[in-house]
Amino acid sequence: MRASRFFISTLKEAPSDAEIVSHKLMMRAGMIKRLGSGIYTYMPMGLRVIRKVENIIREEMNRAGAIELLMPVVQPAELWQETNRWDKMGPELMRVKDRHGRDYAIQPTSEEVITDVVRSDIKSYRQLPINFYHIQTKFRDERRPRFGLMRGREFTMKDAYSFDRDVEGMQKSYKIMYDAYVAIFNRFGLQFRAVAADNGAIGGSGSHEFHVIADTGEDALVYSPESDYAANMEAAEAVALGNRGPAAEPLTKTPTPGKAKCEHVAELLNLPLERTIKSIVLAVDKEGAETEIWLLMLRGDHSLNEVKAAKIPGLGAFRFASEAEIVDAFGTKPGYLGPVGTKKPVKVVADRTVANMADFVCGANEEDFHYTGVNWGRDLPEPLVVDLRNVVSGDPSPDGRGTLAIQRGIEVGHVFQLGTRYSEDMKATYLDENGKPQLMQMGCYGIGVTRILGAAIEQNFDDKGIIWPAAIAPFEVVLCPMGYDRNETVKAETDKLYGDLQAAGVDVILDDRGERPGVMFADWELIGVPHRVVIGDRGLKEGKLEYQGRRDAAATAVNVGEMPAFLKSRLAA
Amino acid sequence: MRASRFFISTLKEAPSDAEIVSHKLMMRAGMIKRLGSGIYTYMPMGLRVIRKVENIIREEMNRAGAIELLMPVVQPAELWQETNRWDKMGPELMRVKDRHGRDYAIQPTSEEVITDVVRSDIKSYRQLPINFYHIQTKFRDERRPRFGLMRGREFTMKDAYSFDRDVEGMQKSYKIMYDAYVAIFNRFGLQFRAVAADNGAIGGSGSHEFHVIADTGEDALVYSPESDYAANMEAAEAVALGNRGPAAEPLTKTPTPGKAKCEHVAELLNLPLERTIKSIVLAVDKEGAETEIWLLMLRGDHSLNEVKAAKIPGLGAFRFASEAEIVDAFGTKPGYLGPVGTKKPVKVVADRTVANMADFVCGANEEDFHYTGVNWGRDLPEPLVVDLRNVVSGDPSPDGRGTLAIQRGIEVGHVFQLGTRYSEDMKATYLDENGKPQLMQMGCYGIGVTRILGAAIEQNFDDKGIIWPAAIAPFEVVLCPMGYDRNETVKAETDKLYGDLQAAGVDVILDDRGERPGVMFADWELIGVPHRVVIGDRGLKEGKLEYQGRRDAAATAVNVGEMPAFLKSRLAA
Repeated sequence: MRASRFFISTLKEAPSDAEIVSHKLMMRAGMIKRLGSGIYTYMPMGLRVIRKVENIIREEMNRAGAIELLMPVVQPAELWQETNRWDKMGPELMRVKDRHGRDYAIQPTSEEVITDVVRSDIKSYRQLPINFYHIQTKFRDERRPRFGLMRGREFTMKDAYSFDRDVEGMQKSYKIMYDAYVAIFNRFGLQFRAVAADNGAIGGSGSHEFHVIADTGEDALVYSPESDYAANMEAAEAVALGNRGPAAEPLTKTPTPGKAKCEHVAELLNLPLERTIKSIVLAVDKEGAETEIWLLMLRGDHSLNEVKAAKIPGLGAFRFASEAEIVDAFGTKPGYLGPVGTKKPVKVVADRTVANMADFVCGANEEDFHYTGVNWGRDLPEPLVVDLRNVVSGDPSPDGRGTLAIQRGIEVGHVFQLGTRYSEDMKATYLDENGKPQLMQMGCYGIGVTRILGAAIEQNFDDKGIIWPAAIAPFEVVLCPMGYDRNETVKAETDKLYGDLQAAGVDVILDDRGERPGVMFADWELIGVPHRVVIGDRGLKEGKLEYQGRRDAAATAVNVGEMPAFLKSRLAA
Repeated sequence: MRASRFFISTLKEAPSDAEIVSHKLMMRAGMIKRLGSGIYTYMPMGLRVIRKVENIIREEMNRAGAIELLMPVVQPAELWQETNRWDKMGPELMRVKDRHGRDYAIQPTSEEVITDVVRSDIKSYRQLPINFYHIQTKFRDERRPRFGLMRGREFTMKDAYSFDRDVEGMQKSYKIMYDAYVAIFNRFGLQFRAVAADNGAIGGSGSHEFHVIADTGEDALVYSPESDYAANMEAAEAVALGNRGPAAEPLTKTPTPGKAKCEHVAELLNLPLERTIKSIVLAVDKEGAETEIWLLMLRGDHSLNEVKAAKIPGLGAFRFASEAEIVDAFGTKPGYLGPVGTKKPVKVVADRTVANMADFVCGANEEDFHYTGVNWGRDLPEPLVVDLRNVVSGDPSPDGRGTLAIQRGIEVGHVFQLGTRYSEDMKATYLDENGKPQLMQMGCYGIGVTRILGAAIEQNFDDKGIIWPAAIAPFEVVLCPMGYDRNETVKAETDKLYGDLQAAGVDVILDDRGERPGVMFADWELIGVPHRVVIGDRGLKEGKLEYQGRRDAAATAVNVGEMPAFLKSRLAA
């Protein structure tokens, strides 16, 4: 490609609504253009990256045996009503009426449509397993679109759907997709991590998220460097710490005036924070009965994992209790709460680590007082013990191998075992060997194509701009001739190298715009092309061209004739 | 591709709502699947054709210097309001509100969005000309979706938009796109014709349609086999026939009881139909004034071209007059109308051919009576003369070279000179050499990607199924082994040929499904793969494979080792 035939539009300053680095750099590099809230035009430079991401995904999906089709953007409401998602999805689902007043959804995903295709086209066990995918425009009416392509409303997603005869088959299909995702993210050239995840609203029985590692990531990823254990913070298992010793201290009500936080109580009493207990009060509303009050107990230095709390039978629909409800149940206000001597009976749940504690400190249900020397069994009944907390760095890995570390990630892929969540509602059955109808076992597998761009940049940038991995860079190599339009030798050598690289299948752009070197270099560093060759009169006199990798501190002189081979080896690295 | 890894789903019968052959065959061949009215899933077999069509378009657009980007499906209403299309488009424009109640259009085309991009990113004459295109999902809420992909609601379109400094530049950009379209349709391997067209609602100053020739086409295309004159019927110029001779007959009121049609009058009077005149009465409503009545006169054997009528100054918003209005203006009911002696004054317009007639016959404005021997100038004033009629086969070509022929076509592409239709409303200006803002001159260029499939089939089918041109066939070659799973020699030779063809870049599918020969052959004939090779034990014993082109009456025996070269030469043909 010649730059003069392409569209390059860089900005010195990012627009003020761009909050994060990837959004700023994509705007400045002219990759995207805002059309409306969370809606972007993919400009020519950005579209090249999107197409490369799509092609890698497509190749690996095909290799894994998935079959591409294309489902519509506008989908009849009737299908969404069959699975109740028409009601459940809420305002995130964009809805539209046609000229006859009929309802349609603008697809955020396509479980319903693919299940509809399969229930009519797949009749027999002989046609299974099968896996269909498409790469298509999606829409989610986010409450607060932001961060450019990271949380847009219109976006491109690859979504695949597997159909199997039984759970074993579904797990096999799931594994094939998991492995394909690993291959895809490796080919992108991005650092990533697959983590076990909570299934969330989509339902089903198992799932993993694929995260691009970046300090700016919204998600906390938990992993053991000594094993292959890895999970999203929501799903990471926290083991019990310590072992419960015998009760050594008497239960003592101790004045702690104005000390409403564990940290302050520990400081006042000159005890380690790990001896204190945090009380969290939840409420569950019951139709036609009194609201239930639950007390969740965590060690002073730990934090509640709300996803885990919501999985406790009876707590599925919890909310945090109001101060009035707390005073009513405990007889005092927050800051001095505890399980001993509550005003009304409350249901007590202790985190695994709390259950292992002895001689601990907790509120005395009286303002300005705490108990010390509290012991399970002696001072209060043994509690219901549950994994309630978020893991922290240094926790033992739940697989028993090593200690946990935490890093930040950006979710860009998600694979789910759906089971019969959709096939049941939509009656997607096949006939087995005995001619009996059986529900299909489904899996679904998404990659946020446009989100990959944002995540890749959050992981790879510097103060000059983006640093694309070569596999998804808009161009692999840029040629910057010094005086292309006025120096015959420079022009001839540039054209020759350009032709040689094109013939060798290198995705090269020749900057023939006639810009000054400073402008040229700044543009291509901002845009993030990973390899640059400068063709200048001075170097040519010595038979040299100047190569510089986007991350290199300085340029390397390379003999003119060796440049194509040099670049090929750099691209293969 | 191995058929066992692909999804093949053929039907014996087309669904009852499929009215035309392309719709029937696409449904039967498993290329598309209906999701809702005018909304289809592109199944794997159909998507392969779509991708080939898209790739040819993309390559030729890039070659012509157009730059690909991707504009959103969901577009803010504000932009559509700037050009008044939000109001003008009516119910065909699908509208949607987001969670905050803001209005959006689901794009049917993208003139507004691209003009918005360009008005902010293009500042200087140095950046012009430029041409952007995208290949994207579109939606038009057709009143009556039908014919499968031929008149769907959701569809894929390539739309390009050129921006130039002046009219001359726009015309040059237009010519480049016109030539690119010719290259594209040639590469599709379809018989097509580019015809001059009326600009219609989109506005602007010149346009051509690209039609795939098919007997079942909705449009009539007019062309001169002796020149390059070609136009859509709407736009084809009808020249004046004959020369007006001197008045020879007296004006005579003649009884024509019950003869309300030209044909019957001519028969009764024993005159050629070409001596009679047809009266068509139009009405134009005027705000705050009486409705205007117009009389349009055509030769008895000619028909009105409504597009031409609407271009007559004052007739832009015409409607056909009601019988009551006709009686009021002419004093008699339809069938006996004419320009001589109307009850009230009416505006008279004569077609060019009518203006050349003498001693003609028309209604006498009295039931059961016609005038004969009517002559311009003598019996009534010279009329306003306009080209009013549809051309007929055998008319002289308006370029003076040859006579016109008519064939049927399916519109699949359209190129427009838009001028400043959009840049004026949206204030899309650039700074010229003198630093003065100037309106950009636009062109727009569409190809109905998914419609191409329907049109290609309407042109290429037989009683067995579809016959794809190789360039857009889902597969170029199908290998049909006889007993792939039970005959070692057949399997080995098939695998070898499959490998050789793949290595040679041939898009080949190996039918390893284990179906009976009859089923295999019927499937691939229905699907329309243009080249078939049968690998059978009997042939192999003599070192032969059996080749049959989809249009061939019989198979050809080809030596095993020569088959790749044979196929390559067939594909190149």
